Amino acid sequence: MTALTVKPRSRLFHGHEWVYASDVQNITGSAEPGDVVALKDVKGKPLGSAIYNPKSQIVARRFSYRKQDLDQEFFVRRIERALNYRKTLPLDQNLCRIVWSESDGLPGLIVDRYGDHLVMQTLTFAMSARQNLIVAALVELLQPKSITARNDSPVRKAEGLELEKKLLHGAAPEPFEYKTNGMVFQIDLMEGQKTGMYLDQIDNYSLVARHAKGKRVLDCFTNQGGFAQAAALAGAREVIAVDVSESAVEMCLRNARSAGVAIGARADNVFDYLKTAEKAGEQYDLIVLDPPSFTKSKQSLTDAMRGYKEIHLRAMKMLQPGGILATFTCSHHVSMGDFRMMINSAAVDTRRTLRYLDTYTQRADHPVITGIPETEYLRGYALEVIGGW
Amino acid sequence: MTALTVKPRSRLFHGHEWVYASDVQNITGSAEPGDVVALKDVKGKPLGSAIYNPKSQIVARRFSYRKQDLDQEFFVRRIERALNYRKTLPLDQNLCRIVWSESDGLPGLIVDRYGDHLVMQTLTFAMSARQNLIVAALVELLQPKSITARNDSPVRKAEGLELEKKLLHGAAPEPFEYKTNGMVFQIDLMEGQKTGMYLDQIDNYSLVARHAKGKRVLDCFTNQGGFAQAAALAGAREVIAVDVSESAVEMCLRNARSAGVAIGARADNVFDYLKTAEKAGEQYDLIVLDPPSFTKSKQSLTDAMRGYKEIHLRAMKMLQPGGILATFTCSHHVSMGDFRMMINSAAVDTRRTLRYLDTYTQRADHPVITGIPETEYLRGYALEVIGGW
Repeated sequence: MTALTVKPRSRLFHGHEWVYASDVQNITGSAEPGDVVALKDVKGKPLGSAIYNPKSQIVARRFSYRKQDLDQEFFVRRIERALNYRKTLPLDQNLCRIVWSESDGLPGLIVDRYGDHLVMQTLTFAMSARQNLIVAALVELLQPKSITARNDSPVRKAEGLELEKKLLHGAAPEPFEYKTNGMVFQIDLMEGQKTGMYLDQIDNYSLVARHAKGKRVLDCFTNQGGFAQAAALAGAREVIAVDVSESAVEMCLRNARSAGVAIGARADNVFDYLKTAEKAGEQYDLIVLDPPSFTKSKQSLTDAMRGYKEIHLRAMKMLQPGGILATFTCSHHVSMGDFRMMINSAAVDTRRTLRYLDTYTQRADHPVITGIPETEYLRGYALEVIGGW
Repeated sequence: MTALTVKPRSRLFHGHEWVYASDVQNITGSAEPGDVVALKDVKGKPLGSAIYNPKSQIVARRFSYRKQDLDQEFFVRRIERALNYRKTLPLDQNLCRIVWSESDGLPGLIVDRYGDHLVMQTLTFAMSARQNLIVAALVELLQPKSITARNDSPVRKAEGLELEKKLLHGAAPEPFEYKTNGMVFQIDLMEGQKTGMYLDQIDNYSLVARHAKGKRVLDCFTNQGGFAQAAALAGAREVIAVDVSESAVEMCLRNARSAGVAIGARADNVFDYLKTAEKAGEQYDLIVLDPPSFTKSKQSLTDAMRGYKEIHLRAMKMLQPGGILATFTCSHHVSMGDFRMMINSAAVDTRRTLRYLDTYTQRADHPVITGIPETEYLRGYALEVIGGW
């Protein structure tokens, strides 16, 4: 087997599982993209097994501390471990991420369950090359009615992989409605967001809605209307949802109808809407900001923070004492400290004092691992305006 | 009224309410410790009203953005606002901090409710000097059977105040047992910890206990045995509680008997116990680390982190895959980033990979305010060992 020697002080020695090109001391033997390589330190001490891809900045990703092949038995074992963990979680097991890449010891493999149907993504060369083994392991463990490959994430390009969407097993369903906790979502396994919908926020919809009773609610970047529906179900007086996409707004309204709640929705750029509404003197009691990631890299963080601050300034101005802001960031590059500093800065600029009410995080089926900071990306808070000056 | 001019770029302009000695440009007029002063910026623009104490490093603490006297009406209004907030919280209203200093716009005033009895602390000169007004406001709002002053916190010395404990109103009860969520605590308003017991962790006892069923549990720094009782109530197989104080251990055992659960407890230095137990090859399924604050200042942070790391190393070594660590820090000076870095470092040193399961914070009756980082001090996590090497 090819051996890859890792330089001293690499992140691998600090609990991480990635080897960057700059961490490589040397490679003996020949390895092709997708091969399994043996990791060693400079003294020759074995450091485990990793998947290899010289085309990626991350040339090796460790998946075992032992000598280990990527065979079907291994996939069955790791997926079973991931499933057993999910079984302990108090969440809808039929609407659940069952494998999440590094967090489940399977770098580059994502599997989501939508009832009897599975959707998988392979984001590394090694996982892509072993798609058939993974499908076999999933069939053995779960006997799904279908498995769809949603390999349309641009992340695959960094690995030298093509983008594709296709059915891998069984018969895939037409787009269907799924009801969870009173809310309704459209599941489109082939064309929906990510692998069908956003799973990481589902529980937060209802958690934020605890603050919605009797309130006038604004849900910004509503997508399928999760926060809007949950707020209406919790007894909000009025709910307005905004999203730049016409199709999202249609879907949001259709979902609300199916859920049996009345909400208003408008297709508009959220930045523009907030500006216009604030200048027109609109007031809300609860505003939700759940924007898409404003940055995919550390480099564009300053611009991203400017964007976050702008929407926070506008939102805060439309909240009076007693008003509540529920705000999220889904970029790993925005640290908790950065995000909270931005919130405080917007509070000072709008002359408001706010109290933290709740802290939100990604759902537990997207687990955070101590040594891999990249596994943590979703942070959110509910804050109440308690005074102004 | 005395006017205090605040230098530009002071923290007061960044959402904070404190004026340090180094932030003072000048003072016109004469003010005594405990007086109310008017704050201004260098251009003469009013910045609100503050309590003044030249003996403290924090010479002024703003309590209003307007011109405002500290009269009984003001206390009634602010305490009522604090009470109204608590009423919205899903917590035991009879075992609750009803006023928490800066977080409730009353710098240096703490009031805790134990059923019909109140305990108050005045930690600033101004609040201490207005003790009678505050008692009158509390009687007007809550008609308590008693109000006890627990002015025995060393923090008072920094304000030039004496330490004292005394009854201010009504008839105080003998020490009594209080049952909440199945757990039993001894409430001693005159001699107990802080104002009788630790209120900020109460809800976390039961949250951590969700992981306790069928487990062998170790509760370190147990104090009154909150985590130990909750774990036993949740169906732990065996619970062992450790505290350096003999009287804490006695209290913990008495509480457990009253709660109808069996736990073991030993009076021992936790550092020593962990060392001995780990070397003897003891194994636990759930270990709780809830130490007292290892640092009261930024200066001794390095020593504190060394202490935290030592107990984490010992605890992790006694946990195998599937084992859970619930760990807390109650020092404001230990940031979330510092704490998590230390956890990862202990994980690497003990060759373990851990997954974050839950995030804990101080109970919502100790609210965190955006502009005042000092209001946030309690952080905790549950982590599961998912592998080792």
